[in-house]
Amino acid sequence: MRHSIHDIAKALGAKALGATDISVTGVAEPAMAGPDHLALAMKPEFAAGLVQGHARAALVWDGADWQGLGLEAAIIAPRPRYAMAGLSAMMDPGQGFAPGVHPTAVIDPTAEVADDASIGPLSVIGPRARIGAGAVIGPQCFVGADAVLGQGAYLREGVRIGARVTIGERFIAQPGATVGADGYSFVTPEQSSIERVRDSLGDQGEITAQAYARIHSLGNVTIGDDVELGANSCIDRGTVRDTQIGNGVKFDNLAQIGHNVVIGNDCLICGLVGVAGSTRIGNNVVLGGQTGVSDNLFIGDNVITGGATKVLANVPAGRVMMGYPAMKMDTHIETYKALRRLPRLMKQVAALQKAVFKPGQSD
Amino acid sequence: MRHSIHDIAKALGAKALGATDISVTGVAEPAMAGPDHLALAMKPEFAAGLVQGHARAALVWDGADWQGLGLEAAIIAPRPRYAMAGLSAMMDPGQGFAPGVHPTAVIDPTAEVADDASIGPLSVIGPRARIGAGAVIGPQCFVGADAVLGQGAYLREGVRIGARVTIGERFIAQPGATVGADGYSFVTPEQSSIERVRDSLGDQGEITAQAYARIHSLGNVTIGDDVELGANSCIDRGTVRDTQIGNGVKFDNLAQIGHNVVIGNDCLICGLVGVAGSTRIGNNVVLGGQTGVSDNLFIGDNVITGGATKVLANVPAGRVMMGYPAMKMDTHIETYKALRRLPRLMKQVAALQKAVFKPGQSD
Amino acid sequence: MRHSIHDIAKALGAKALGATDISVTGVAEPAMAGPDHLALAMKPEFAAGLVQGHARAALVWDGADWQGLGLEAAIIAPRPRYAMAGLSAMMDPGQGFAPGVHPTAVIDPTAEVADDASIGPLSVIGPRARIGAGAVIGPQCFVGADAVLGQGAYLREGVRIGARVTIGERFIAQPGATVGADGYSFVTPEQSSIERVRDSLGDQGEITAQAYARIHSLGNVTIGDDVELGANSCIDRGTVRDTQIGNGVKFDNLAQIGHNVVIGNDCLICGLVGVAGSTRIGNNVVLGGQTGVSDNLFIGDNVITGGATKVLANVPAGRVMMGYPAMKMDTHIETYKALRRLPRLMKQVAALQKAVFKPGQSD
Repeated sequence: MRHSIHDIAKALGAKALGATDISVTGVAEPAMAGPDHLALAMKPEFAAGLVQGHARAALVWDGADWQGLGLEAAIIAPRPRYAMAGLSAMMDPGQGFAPGVHPTAVIDPTAEVADDASIGPLSVIGPRARIGAGAVIGPQCFVGADAVLGQGAYLREGVRIGARVTIGERFIAQPGATVGADGYSFVTPEQSSIERVRDSLGDQGEITAQAYARIHSLGNVTIGDDVELGANSCIDRGTVRDTQIGNGVKFDNLAQIGHNVVIGNDCLICGLVGVAGSTRIGNNVVLGGQTGVSDNLFIGDNVITGGATKVLANVPAGRVMMGYPAMKMDTHIETYKALRRLPRLMKQVAALQKAVFKPGQSD
Repeated sequence: MRHSIHDIAKALGAKALGATDISVTGVAEPAMAGPDHLALAMKPEFAAGLVQGHARAALVWDGADWQGLGLEAAIIAPRPRYAMAGLSAMMDPGQGFAPGVHPTAVIDPTAEVADDASIGPLSVIGPRARIGAGAVIGPQCFVGADAVLGQGAYLREGVRIGARVTIGERFIAQPGATVGADGYSFVTPEQSSIERVRDSLGDQGEITAQAYARIHSLGNVTIGDDVELGANSCIDRGTVRDTQIGNGVKFDNLAQIGHNVVIGNDCLICGLVGVAGSTRIGNNVVLGGQTGVSDNLFIGDNVITGGATKVLANVPAGRVMMGYPAMKMDTHIETYKALRRLPRLMKQVAALQKAVFKPGQSD
Repeated sequence: MRHSIHDIAKALGAKALGATDISVTGVAEPAMAGPDHLALAMKPEFAAGLVQGHARAALVWDGADWQGLGLEAAIIAPRPRYAMAGLSAMMDPGQGFAPGVHPTAVIDPTAEVADDASIGPLSVIGPRARIGAGAVIGPQCFVGADAVLGQGAYLREGVRIGARVTIGERFIAQPGATVGADGYSFVTPEQSSIERVRDSLGDQGEITAQAYARIHSLGNVTIGDDVELGANSCIDRGTVRDTQIGNGVKFDNLAQIGHNVVIGNDCLICGLVGVAGSTRIGNNVVLGGQTGVSDNLFIGDNVITGGATKVLANVPAGRVMMGYPAMKMDTHIETYKALRRLPRLMKQVAALQKAVFKPGQSD
C-alpha cells in the first residue's frame, strides 16, 4: 500500500516539505533505502546514509539540509521517536491473519463472539467466553471458560488465556503468552525450613523432610486496557483475590508475574523479569530486563530498576535502583567502583599495619 | 456448589463453631466477602476486614472472638495456612475441561488411553503413548511416541511431553510446559575456548574459530509422582542416561532444567531458575526465583537458595545460600553491609595514610 | 536398528578393535549397559563401570586395556567427546514424527511445501510460506505468511515462526520456540524518565506520568544455516531492519533475543540469556546461562561470559567476563575474594585508627 508524504505527515501531525506528493510503500534505514522507501534519518549521524541510499524522501531531524542531502521531500517531526509510533502503525503489514472464523476453530456454542471478531485456525474458545468487537484471535490460541477479552484484542499464534480471566480493551499478546496459569503456592503440614529461614535470616533450624501440599488458585486475573504481553510470558491467577494488572502496562517476553501480584498503570516490565507472589507495584514503574522482585513487597510509583536488579526489600516511590541486592543507582555505582579498588586498598592497609604496629602486634 | 461449614471443617480436620449448617459457595478476603463466602481471616489483622465485609462465616485464627466480629459461624484450624490446601481444593472451580475424548483430538490408534481419561480438543497423542486412569489432557496438548503419563495426570492447555518421557502419578503441568526437549550439548572438533577457560579460570588461550557439532539426546526424562511443572517451563532429555526428577518436586513458571540433571524428592524450584546440565540436586532443596546453578555440580539435601543466587560450586547439605557467587546467607549479608560502607572506609584509609606516611611515601 | 562395531567406527572415522562384527542397538553408561549396548567409557574412571555392566563393546579412552576389562570389542576415537556427535546422531531414535502431510494440517493453498517435506497434525502453514526439501514440521507448529524455512528444517511440536521470517538450511527448533514476535519498543509523547535516567546515570528528574505508544515492528528476522533454537526461546523481529542471526548459532531454552539484535556466526547463547534491543554480537561468542546484555551494546568476537554475567557496557573481542556488572573474569575473582575479606579489613582499619589518632580525632 502506498502513502504520500503529505498524508503521512498529516497523520503524524508533522511538517511535510518539498515534493509531498511522492508516495512510499515502506520505511528503511537511510543507507538501505530504495526510491519507494521513506528513509528514517532522525539524527544528524544518518546524513551519510542518506547520500549512500536511494530514498527520495525521509523523516529527518529538525534543521536537516534535506535538499543538500539529495532528497526531494522531507518530513520533520518535533519528537521523531514519538512520530515512529504513528508511522510504524501506518506501515505495519501485520501478520496476515484472515478475517472471519476459521472452520477448524473449536468454539463452544455458549461462547459469545462479536460478529466482526476473527478466530484463527485450530483455536479453541471455551464455554461462555466473551470475545469483544474487532478482536483478532490468531491461530492455535486458547480462550478458557468464562474468560472475557475486550474489544480490539489481538492475539498472535498460540496465546493461552485461562478460565475466568478478564481482559480490557486493545489487549495485545505475543506468541505463546499465557494468562491464568495456577499460582505457585505450596504448604507443609508443619512450619517449613523456608518459613524459619525467613524469620532468622539464614538459620533453617532443625531440618525435617516434609512433602508439599498444593494451595489451589481460586482467584482469577484481571487486566486493564491497552496492555501488551510478550512472547512466552506468564501471568498467574490469584489465590483468593485476583492478580491485577492496570491500564497501559507493557510486558516484554518471558516475564513471570506471580499470584496475587498487583501492578498499577503504565508500567514497563522487561524481558525475563520475575515478580514473586503478592508483591504490589505502583504506577509508571519500569523494571529493567532480568529484574527480580521478591514476594510480598511494595514498589512505589515511578520506581525504575536497571537491568538485572534484584529487589529484596520495599522501594519507596521515585527511586532508581540497581544491583543485587538492589541499592539506589548512585550508591551502586559508587560501591562497585570502590569494589574494584578493593584489592589495592588491602595492600594499603597491610602497609599501614606494618608501619604502625610492631611485628606480632597486628590483628 | 454449596458446602456447609460443618462439612468444610470436617474435611479439613478442623473445629466448626456456631451455625455450622450455614453453607457457602466460595472463599473471599474478609473485606470483600459476601454472605455466600467463607471469609479467610487467618490472622488478627483481618479483624477489621471481617467487620467491613458481609461474611456470615469465616476461617479464623485461634482465639478469635468471632461472635464479637459479627460472624454466625467459624472454623478454627490448628495451622490455617495448611488448611488452605484442603479448603482451596474443595472450592476450586477448575478449568471446566469437558470429560471424554474430544472428536478433534488426534490419537494414534496404538496409543493406550485409559477409559476414564479425557483428551481435550486438538490434542495429539502419539504412537504407543500410555495415558493413565483419570488423566485429564487439556486442549492443544501433545504427548509423544512411547511417552507414559501416570494416573490422575492433569495437563493444562498446550502442554508438550516428548517421545519416551515417563511421568508418575498425579502430575500437574501448567500451560506451555515442555518435557523432553533435546539437551543443549555441542562439541567442537578441537578443544574449544570454553574448555580452556574452565581449566585456566579465565584464559581462553589461542583463539581458533570452530563450528559446533550437535550431540543428540539419546536419554529420556523420568519424573516421579506428585510433580508439578509451571507454565512455559522446560525439562530437557538426557544425553545417554535419563534426566531424573524425584517425587513431590514442584516447579514454578519459566524454569529450565538441563540434560542429565538429577533432582531428588520434595524440592521447590521457583520461577526463572536455571539448572545447567548434569547437576545433581538432593532432597528437600529450595531454589529461590531466578537462582542459577552451573553444570556438573552437586547440591546437597535441604539446601535453600535465596532469590537470584548464582551457584558456581558444590553446596553441602543444609546450607542456606545467597548472592553471586553464592555464599552462605549470613556471610552474604555481612559482606554486603560492608560493601555499602566501603566508600567511607576508603576515606578512612586515605586519612590514615596521610597521618602515618610522609608526603610522597605512600603507595 | 542394529549397527556393527565395524560400521560405527567407520562412520566416526575411529579405530575398531576385536570382534568388530558384534552389533549394538543403542548406547549406555558402562555400569548400566546390557549386551546390546555400546558402553560409553571415554575416561579411565569408567573402568569399574565396565566391569560392573554387561556391555560386550565400548567406546573407550585411548590406551584402555579393553580386553582386560572384559570387552570383546572396542572403538577408540582421538577426541571421544567429538565422536559423540556422530555416534549420537546414528543412534538417535528421534521423535517418531510420521512422514507426509497430516490431513489435519491447515496449509494455505498458496504455500510452497517441498514434495518430501512432512507436516505434522494440526500445524498451520500460512499464505505463500515456503518449506524447503526434507523439512520436518512437527505437530501443532505455525509458519506464518511469507515465511521461508530452508531445506532440512526440523521443528519439534508447537514451534511458531512469524510472518516474513527467513531461515536458512538445517534449522532445528525445540518445542515452543518462537521466532518473529513483535519487538518491545514503546515511546512516550515527551522525554521519559528512563531517557533522563540514562543521561544522568540515576536521576530521573521531574516525574511526569505518561502513557506509552507502541512502535510497530516493521523489520523481520533473518536466520542463517545450521542454527538451533531451544524450547520456549524467543527471537523478536526488528523495528526497521531485520534482527539477524548468523550461521551455526545455538540457543538453549528460554533465551530472549530483542529487536534489531545482530549475532554473528558460531555463537552459543545459553539458557535464560537475555539480549536487549539493537545489541550487536560478534562471531564465536559464548554467553553463559542467565547472562544479560543491555541494549545498544557491542560484544566483540570470541567473548565468553560466565553464568549470570550482566553486561552493561561494550566488551572488546576476546575478553572472558563475569559478574554484575561484568568485569574481566580474573578481576571478578580477585574482587570477590577481597569482598569476603572485607569485614576483617574493616576491623583492621578501626584498630589502625585507634592506634594512630587520638580519641575524638578520627573520622
